[in-house]
Amino acid sequence: MEHPLILVSNDDGITSKGIRLLVEIMKSLGDVVVVAPDSPQSGMGHAITVGETLRLDKVDMFDGVDAYKCSGTPADCVKIAKHHVLHERRPDLVVSGVNHGSNTSISVLYSGTMSAAIEGAIEGMPAIGFSLCDYASDAEFEHTIPYIEKITKVVLKKGLPKGVALNVNIPPKKNEPIQGMKICRQARAKWQEEFDQRVDPNGRTYYWMAGKFINFDKGEDNDEWAIAHNYVSVVPCLFDLTAHHAISILNDEWDILKN
Amino acid sequence: MEHPLILVSNDDGITSKGIRLLVEIMKSLGDVVVVAPDSPQSGMGHAITVGETLRLDKVDMFDGVDAYKCSGTPADCVKIAKHHVLHERRPDLVVSGVNHGSNTSISVLYSGTMSAAIEGAIEGMPAIGFSLCDYASDAEFEHTIPYIEKITKVVLKKGLPKGVALNVNIPPKKNEPIQGMKICRQARAKWQEEFDQRVDPNGRTYYWMAGKFINFDKGEDNDEWAIAHNYVSVVPCLFDLTAHHAISILNDEWDILKN
Repeated sequence: MEHPLILVSNDDGITSKGIRLLVEIMKSLGDVVVVAPDSPQSGMGHAITVGETLRLDKVDMFDGVDAYKCSGTPADCVKIAKHHVLHERRPDLVVSGVNHGSNTSISVLYSGTMSAAIEGAIEGMPAIGFSLCDYASDAEFEHTIPYIEKITKVVLKKGLPKGVALNVNIPPKKNEPIQGMKICRQARAKWQEEFDQRVDPNGRTYYWMAGKFINFDKGEDNDEWAIAHNYVSVVPCLFDLTAHHAISILNDEWDILKN
Repeated sequence: MEHPLILVSNDDGITSKGIRLLVEIMKSLGDVVVVAPDSPQSGMGHAITVGETLRLDKVDMFDGVDAYKCSGTPADCVKIAKHHVLHERRPDLVVSGVNHGSNTSISVLYSGTMSAAIEGAIEGMPAIGFSLCDYASDAEFEHTIPYIEKITKVVLKKGLPKGVALNVNIPPKKNEPIQGMKICRQARAKWQEEFDQRVDPNGRTYYWMAGKFINFDKGEDNDEWAIAHNYVSVVPCLFDLTAHHAISILNDEWDILKN
């Protein structure tokens, strides 16, 4: 594709290191427009702004790139980009990230990064969320560049199956090089929350949500396995949540349907 | 099941009409504990509270029922209920709602009601989100009672397939009676947003997100069809977003994997 239009968003906010890197990579691949949250939106899942107003302001932060900061969620950013900022030219690709932290496994549900990508897929545009599996405040992002370039180029060339957005996670920088890329399924895992109970200076109780990640998955075809073995994981994701296999089970088992 | 423990949450907030109805129904079916947001959380999708504190306060709002209001999202409510409030007794069922408005089709992704139910499924508990497809401020809820009772009873008796939460939508009150219940798939539809641009008293631009719902789905096996034809729709939902069919497509098409 000659000069594709690439929409860039994220959930860490428009001033984050990860989106600056993503914009630089995308500038070499097409025309870039940025619409990203004006503040960090981690954990926002697929939230949208209902019953409140949105702000959208042009910013001069990326050399030669039209960029807007938005007061809303990552999903809001893609919506206002598609239907307001870019209503005259449809983006050929939506990319989100690079997220500072992992979005493997169940975290895809809580991920603002992936909600921007999935919103792109809902709008019928190929879409990719990129995350770096490193929470360190001084995390290195540079080793992600060749993988982001390769994946973006192949998606621009070949497109994606209808209704699919990619959840790409990249291992942290290590001494040995990354082993390659794997197409994976979402690992069966969850967060085991703990609530740290404290008392504020006024004597009122409050809580911090904390907890640890528990991986139940024994398979080698999932994103947790890939990251643990130093591969880039690529999970194709749907926005059709239907448990299709369960439809016949419920039709068979529920006598209350026969009335 | 004798005296099951039923956790009730929602996204319209603990003072809403829908949750009062749901608590009343559940009291006749088991022991009930309520943990629900202290304010409306519509459109929160699967958001969780990261990097901020949570409040949780016992309230005396439902006769003979332990109830707590929480400052977090619907997903937060289920997490703090499971791991803090109810850490000594595991709920046998999670129910969420009754939402004042539809959560059919693509709205499941933006729905706080369904995020509470899906969070229940992630925790391995049978879970159901109930929504009334009526946005009128004086919407009648009473006709939903027999369907909520029937569905809850069958789920308590037979359980649900592993990892599945039910998205139940109930038509608005009409002159003719509801036709029955249908197990459905999520309809292929989307919101076509429009952004209503205004200027505030200080001369700054702001936006209201508005728009209309567009149903692309010609099938008769989906939730939009069911509601339009006066049936209760029951969609079994997954939290595994993997597009399993796309894994072999990408493995086949992507030459960048062979390195």
